[in-house]
Amino acid sequence: MKCQDYSLNRQTERENLNLNPLQRGGVLPPESRQALYEFSDGYSICDYCAGRLDQISKPSINSFLEDMASFIGADHARTVHGAREGKFAVMHALCRPGDTVLMDGNAHYTSHLAAERNGLNIVEVPSSDDPEYRIDAEGYQETLDELNDMGEDVSLVLLTHVDGDYGNVTDARAIGKIAHDSGIPFLLNCAYSMGRMPIDAEKWNVDFVVGSGHKSMAASGPIGILGVQEEWADMVLKRSNRHQVKELEMMGCSSRGAPIATLMASLPHIIDRVNQWDVEVEKTRYFVSEMEKISGVRQIGVRPTEHDLIRFETPFFHSIAGKHPRKGFYLYEELKKRNIVGIKRGQTQWFKCSTYGYSQEQVHYIANSFGEIAAKYREMAD
Amino acid sequence: MKCQDYSLNRQTERENLNLNPLQRGGVLPPESRQALYEFSDGYSICDYCAGRLDQISKPSINSFLEDMASFIGADHARTVHGAREGKFAVMHALCRPGDTVLMDGNAHYTSHLAAERNGLNIVEVPSSDDPEYRIDAEGYQETLDELNDMGEDVSLVLLTHVDGDYGNVTDARAIGKIAHDSGIPFLLNCAYSMGRMPIDAEKWNVDFVVGSGHKSMAASGPIGILGVQEEWADMVLKRSNRHQVKELEMMGCSSRGAPIATLMASLPHIIDRVNQWDVEVEKTRYFVSEMEKISGVRQIGVRPTEHDLIRFETPFFHSIAGKHPRKGFYLYEELKKRNIVGIKRGQTQWFKCSTYGYSQEQVHYIANSFGEIAAKYREMAD
Repeated sequence: MKCQDYSLNRQTERENLNLNPLQRGGVLPPESRQALYEFSDGYSICDYCAGRLDQISKPSINSFLEDMASFIGADHARTVHGAREGKFAVMHALCRPGDTVLMDGNAHYTSHLAAERNGLNIVEVPSSDDPEYRIDAEGYQETLDELNDMGEDVSLVLLTHVDGDYGNVTDARAIGKIAHDSGIPFLLNCAYSMGRMPIDAEKWNVDFVVGSGHKSMAASGPIGILGVQEEWADMVLKRSNRHQVKELEMMGCSSRGAPIATLMASLPHIIDRVNQWDVEVEKTRYFVSEMEKISGVRQIGVRPTEHDLIRFETPFFHSIAGKHPRKGFYLYEELKKRNIVGIKRGQTQWFKCSTYGYSQEQVHYIANSFGEIAAKYREMAD
Repeated sequence: MKCQDYSLNRQTERENLNLNPLQRGGVLPPESRQALYEFSDGYSICDYCAGRLDQISKPSINSFLEDMASFIGADHARTVHGAREGKFAVMHALCRPGDTVLMDGNAHYTSHLAAERNGLNIVEVPSSDDPEYRIDAEGYQETLDELNDMGEDVSLVLLTHVDGDYGNVTDARAIGKIAHDSGIPFLLNCAYSMGRMPIDAEKWNVDFVVGSGHKSMAASGPIGILGVQEEWADMVLKRSNRHQVKELEMMGCSSRGAPIATLMASLPHIIDRVNQWDVEVEKTRYFVSEMEKISGVRQIGVRPTEHDLIRFETPFFHSIAGKHPRKGFYLYEELKKRNIVGIKRGQTQWFKCSTYGYSQEQVHYIANSFGEIAAKYREMAD
């Protein structure tokens, strides 16, 4: 048989300024590209395995997991295939089908899927209305009180630390305290925060924390981190009855390949950049202020932003699309001419973007490019 | 905080002849190293996703999965994180806790873990005695008859196509027929066969087939393939109630990163090498015949071998270890001097090895090296 052509190149996304928030936090530093080269082949990480991935000492996965646990304030750390698989594992270990899990209204779809795959009932804490979509501790308290009044037990409280729609940063510590005061374990989804900004599971009353290597930790996907506090280790890191050394929820071993090598190589880089988080937020606020100089452009979500993921309403760009011969594609095409990609083709009414990791000069160039395009087509706008 | 040194290099395993069976089938061809470079960063595969990984057309994951399904004789193919995650997904979709799954006595530990994590009861079809450890269709028939007599339902029949202890190739088609005649779905674990030798799920009465990219398909781990026949697609590829486009057992998307790019790039290479399987088996038989010229060395498992994974009993090498000043380490050290690695340090009584993918000259050199070491220490042997 003959294979079709799979178009296995990514030159456009590699060589241009890519504003897709999904891609900003996963860019590898040079040392992780080297690790990828070293560990390219198959089961490369398993040469010196004595039965448990997390105990391998060459390369030092065991030391890495100690460092990672310390970095996020958890007693134990394991690699998982991503944040979603970490959430599934926690729910699978803790809950029975029919149990209720409480989560925020801005939760990622994978939190829903992890619960649904486990047969769990989801109750949501609604966000505030447009334009903030804020999730707050009071909402969690109220919903828990209501459930309590109805006599409904909650097995797990989940919070999306930073959501993927608005980049709102929630008060994990306050919500963790509410969960703990109710005697309910607390899972924090840090897919958009771990590796970008400081995380302290212990201080924040977090029992389980998940992060995403490909989303926010400068690693090749698929890889994530699951942090577990000692109190829950027996349950979540339970061993197999038949194969005493193997952890059941990890299916024996999780990350058996190159991505873990990239995450290991990236950890020092991540520790450094997390310390620079304030600078990233400042750059983003500058970017927002420049973008909002364009007529009608408005950042949606909590203001001023506390994260690099930004959702803009852009009615001005949308009104141009109605008259432009290239319709909605003009924006993508004009940006690409300026070596900027990552805004979906045809999307003009609103978009999400991030300038995470770009220099102040690059951020200025990007904002200026949007301004240029707006000026160029000003007469087409309503 | 400061990270420990993780020793992120693999020069020894990359630059020497590596006999570890786990590593032989996962070596990337040059085109897959290029794909790894292109898709190094984070969520690289997801630039053009419209909601479903398996439907992405740039790169053409959709075309790749069509080709893969056709290659293995399945109606549908999905990428999973590895064979174990594929087995877990099938059991999770099909079975309820307390259900019984029938599997061979040579099953990989991950088949046990997939069942245990799903709360399933395992019944085993024993292998024949030493030295063959053969799994045959009659054994499956007998065990099914016994279970039937006891009134015990079986939800799933699992077979390890080629086991990882002896490299025995089982008669999947005959066992598939027995399962089907009993009205029980049949799952074939092809971790050591898919990508090495031809697989035909349809012809072999296979409902679900799993393969391992890192073990046998020249891909960076973690990645595997799950093949599903149409009859079971509604169940195993069931969509989420809340997120209609997302497949529940895939948690929305599975392989969101570099490994899938390497597997895609490797498929043409894999198709070619599977057609050369007879040559690989012949080379291995030659290797066995040369090794068995050493006093007491004996291949364990079905003879003549039909696979490249070989288990040798090596009492001769073990008897030397008793007198050698380096104890059991001498064998590893003597091999390493000859640029051969992959036999565990200190192991001399028996070992598993594979020369898969090496040239006839290299295989000759490897066998000759063992012969040289045997001759060198002949006087130390009992």
